[in-house]
Amino acid sequence: MPQFLSTNDPDFEAGFAALLSAKREDSPDVDAVVADIIADVRARGDAAVLELTAKFDRLEIDAAGMAFSDAEIEAACASVSEADRVALELAAERIRAYHERQMPEDARWEDEAGASLGWRWTAVSAAGLYVPGGLATYPSSVLMNAIPAKVAGVERLAMVVPTPDGEVNPLVLLAAKISGVDEIHRIGGAQAVAALAYGTQTIAPVDKITGPGNAFVAAAKRRVFGKVGIDMIAGPSEILVIADADNDPDWIALDMLSQAEHDESAQALLITDDEGFGQRVAEAIEARLETLERRTIAGASWRDFGAVITVRDMDEAVALSDRIAPEHLELCVADAEGMAAKIRHAGAIFIGAWTPEAIGDYVGGPNHVLPTARSARFSSGLSVMEFLKRTTLARMTPDALAAIGPAAETLAISESLEAHGLSVRARLDKLNRS
Amino acid sequence: MPQFLSTNDPDFEAGFAALLSAKREDSPDVDAVVADIIADVRARGDAAVLELTAKFDRLEIDAAGMAFSDAEIEAACASVSEADRVALELAAERIRAYHERQMPEDARWEDEAGASLGWRWTAVSAAGLYVPGGLATYPSSVLMNAIPAKVAGVERLAMVVPTPDGEVNPLVLLAAKISGVDEIHRIGGAQAVAALAYGTQTIAPVDKITGPGNAFVAAAKRRVFGKVGIDMIAGPSEILVIADADNDPDWIALDMLSQAEHDESAQALLITDDEGFGQRVAEAIEARLETLERRTIAGASWRDFGAVITVRDMDEAVALSDRIAPEHLELCVADAEGMAAKIRHAGAIFIGAWTPEAIGDYVGGPNHVLPTARSARFSSGLSVMEFLKRTTLARMTPDALAAIGPAAETLAISESLEAHGLSVRARLDKLNRS
Repeated sequence: MPQFLSTNDPDFEAGFAALLSAKREDSPDVDAVVADIIADVRARGDAAVLELTAKFDRLEIDAAGMAFSDAEIEAACASVSEADRVALELAAERIRAYHERQMPEDARWEDEAGASLGWRWTAVSAAGLYVPGGLATYPSSVLMNAIPAKVAGVERLAMVVPTPDGEVNPLVLLAAKISGVDEIHRIGGAQAVAALAYGTQTIAPVDKITGPGNAFVAAAKRRVFGKVGIDMIAGPSEILVIADADNDPDWIALDMLSQAEHDESAQALLITDDEGFGQRVAEAIEARLETLERRTIAGASWRDFGAVITVRDMDEAVALSDRIAPEHLELCVADAEGMAAKIRHAGAIFIGAWTPEAIGDYVGGPNHVLPTARSARFSSGLSVMEFLKRTTLARMTPDALAAIGPAAETLAISESLEAHGLSVRARLDKLNRS
Repeated sequence: MPQFLSTNDPDFEAGFAALLSAKREDSPDVDAVVADIIADVRARGDAAVLELTAKFDRLEIDAAGMAFSDAEIEAACASVSEADRVALELAAERIRAYHERQMPEDARWEDEAGASLGWRWTAVSAAGLYVPGGLATYPSSVLMNAIPAKVAGVERLAMVVPTPDGEVNPLVLLAAKISGVDEIHRIGGAQAVAALAYGTQTIAPVDKITGPGNAFVAAAKRRVFGKVGIDMIAGPSEILVIADADNDPDWIALDMLSQAEHDESAQALLITDDEGFGQRVAEAIEARLETLERRTIAGASWRDFGAVITVRDMDEAVALSDRIAPEHLELCVADAEGMAAKIRHAGAIFIGAWTPEAIGDYVGGPNHVLPTARSARFSSGLSVMEFLKRTTLARMTPDALAAIGPAAETLAISESLEAHGLSVRARLDKLNRS
């Protein structure tokens, strides 16, 4: 049974705190196995990757067959239906347009001391994109990871995707092609992450690795972090819908089920100011669960982690939402824009009942890789920024150094860093002599 | 002996690769100890923190004495010399002015489909700042961490600084006060990180923790990552100077020693197109090492990790620099601006011989917390961005949903996510009926 809470209940705070802190996923401890795999790939390169691919994916290939050939990619793309291709292209175009607006600007200025200061953004040279194989292969995730990298200016984007028993989703290859991915390797697991991070005879190393994966992939990303950059390690997906009684309960039910169907660990929450409406949504969820294809998964998620919270007014809803810091927040209320403006912690906000969260998963434009498990309190979704880095710039003139150098010397001496002070002093002395 | 390499040497590539991959720091494995400390603080709160503070810092305090009182802070600040106070205030003012320019802009627009899209930046609500105690207590680091947090709009900034045997550097407290730090706790180590991440009876939990620390602090930050955000785990500092023969060898020597004196694991590198100049810099370093206060540390760094690389021309210097991806890059060449424009991977660039790196450590304005160990290939120095997060915004109209909804439905079906498709379809059906 999902939980039904009300801020009118005397024990609401305890129930809400329990909901917030509920652990929804047990990650198996695969760290030792992953450490061995990474060491093996570092030591033996291609040979290790190919052996592990034969073992885990039941796929016998040689180094030359690791990458998909252009002909293979073309053939796969040609097998995609016209409707799917057009939909993917629309999604790609909208995602590209949104992320192009994210490009940050360089800056350079001279201040009153005469110092020239600024910064410059440059792209990561080479990035790797992990794409899961099997059931959880989502072409939309390829678009969401690859397009920001290419918009940022990444020159070489290498994708890895395991193909268990040789099977591959043609839509994934088409999404890669549309996004401008430069190379696609049919490998996966920790061995693929290690190959991207350290390189092999066939695969050149990259500087940054993004993309979702199972426990082995997550552990491998954690281990190679530092050698390369990584994106967040995402937890199970979640949605919070804030809705008043002027909504169709079935729409809200479907929006919540569209999270619940991802994963038994996913979480769908509703906050409403009308207890009866909350009941009607719960009933609509039960009704939809009778026929939904993924009813076993969605049903488990709803039963174990779902909740309906009744609040006295919508200000309470905003305050609770910020404590939840949801990955996806859908606002189906009269003044949805006004409420959105009050929200402080959320990965993405879907404003108004005509904006189902699923739009954001595919074609809205914003990224669908978003902070989970309350991490929207301190982090953001994927963007072009993950594929850029900033170099700060400073240039002193003799006058600028004369103006601010003595303070640097004073602070260096106070920190007992003599050479720091002397490096400034040597220049100041030259100025004083001339 | 530092290394002397030349791109004319037939074995240059091997020597340079060895230099790039040299491991400069062995981190002791303290993870098990740190895990116990964190579990203890989570279980027992203040009591655990106070016991560990008594044990590690030889300091007996009670919960009420954990935070410095206003009177204690005032007294410490009053003990700072006028010269030091003025220098700190100048540094703070310049750092603040630089970081204010970094504030990113919100965006909102309507696209041709009629969808309203955008994003909004908000500050992390509460941040924790770790400041090392003892020898490595740098007031400049307090400014560099605290000011970006406050510029970003962090409402509550809690600082922790261990005070072994009760000793505290008054400059650190003054720097905290100038920066607007809201509370200062005299605790340190993994127990302080745990207290910030999970909270105790006395210390409210924060959302993000930044600041440098020893192996215990670094391990604790890694462990609480996910519960809270953290900044990078910095390695030993490094500088690369690219200089032609028109420089005073003593200036360059001092700039290199100002890195070397930080730490025996620090690294100072010189690239020059004049072998004789390289020799003169090396001689100047040896001469300065005879009298430098921190000559033991700086000497060990220079002997074990220092290098002078002679190149045929400055284009080679740029290419090698990008392979090093230095934390600090100083360009002392005729066309320093032109060379800076060609550089792709560097944490901070100091342009021209009148810009010693030490200026950037204190009063330049840019942040001195920068990516080490070649991570400038994929990451940036500390900025206001570390204390902000982005919420993406999307609002569909019925017309916008009619335009792009069908593509979302198509992609949902192709990914076997039925409820995703149904959540869009239910709305499209309503439009079709009306």
